[in-house]
Amino acid sequence: MRNTTLCYLERDGKVLMLFRNRKKNDVNKGKWIGIGGKFEEGESPEECAAREVREETGLTIENAKLRGIVTFVYDADPSEYMFLYTGGVSGEMIPEDACPEGELAWIEKEKISSLPTWEGDRIFLSLLSKNAPFFSLKLVYDRESRLTSAVLDGKELKAPFEV
Amino acid sequence: MRNTTLCYLERDGKVLMLFRNRKKNDVNKGKWIGIGGKFEEGESPEECAAREVREETGLTIENAKLRGIVTFVYDADPSEYMFLYTGGVSGEMIPEDACPEGELAWIEKEKISSLPTWEGDRIFLSLLSKNAPFFSLKLVYDRESRLTSAVLDGKELKAPFEV
Repeated sequence: MRNTTLCYLERDGKVLMLFRNRKKNDVNKGKWIGIGGKFEEGESPEECAAREVREETGLTIENAKLRGIVTFVYDADPSEYMFLYTGGVSGEMIPEDACPEGELAWIEKEKISSLPTWEGDRIFLSLLSKNAPFFSLKLVYDRESRLTSAVLDGKELKAPFEV
Repeated sequence: MRNTTLCYLERDGKVLMLFRNRKKNDVNKGKWIGIGGKFEEGESPEECAAREVREETGLTIENAKLRGIVTFVYDADPSEYMFLYTGGVSGEMIPEDACPEGELAWIEKEKISSLPTWEGDRIFLSLLSKNAPFFSLKLVYDRESRLTSAVLDGKELKAPFEV
């Protein structure tokens, strides 16, 4: 198992998204996601979020809020527990093409749903946009990256998995 | 790193506590803690909580509520992320001496603070009893099991670490 953070940072009504196109063997390749990465030894969730935002964007996360936990089960990989944050930012961003993991872009909120993302991301992005209270979401994917099950706070969602 | 759940179950104003006195090499030996254990592969936090409560007590957790995350850093061990739950119970408990990990006992709430526990447990038990909103608490212990640092929602607490 591994723990990661995933942060959706907002400024002026736009959300900072990362188009993952630069790492080899990236499970997220070709998809847009938020900013984040794996916990380092001894880090608390909020320490990991702050470090990942700093390393990947040069920005400082402000008023980080833990919005939910996503249990991400994908084929034979070890399960991943994503600590989902939203927050504001301060400071200056690195150039848009300087992030080692992909291309950074500020996207208008209403356009995020039209970007290529993991199918299950739409569920938690929708929960975030609705300002849902803290949630636990379990997403199970098959080896073709198709979402086969989604369970929100212990309740199975039915396909097409809308909330 | 590893993820665990820790559940404080309440019935009739008492809390179910476990006196860890039955496992060899138990980091919790001689201490009173709640009910819980390690995540199994593919489990969501709430699935782990429900299974651990069932296995260790025979009871069913009801209205489980995730109250906080505790980052537990202890000597050279891998960091532990404890998902802290409170809840009610239904069903019938196994005999008090039938739990493989220790002795189960329903303890009156106000007496919990006088039991031997990890020093940092007093911090989160106090937060739970005050009905604090969701929190993230990082606790660092040395190899003599002394608490050397406690950080609550990113803010360092000063010794004697009271909240």
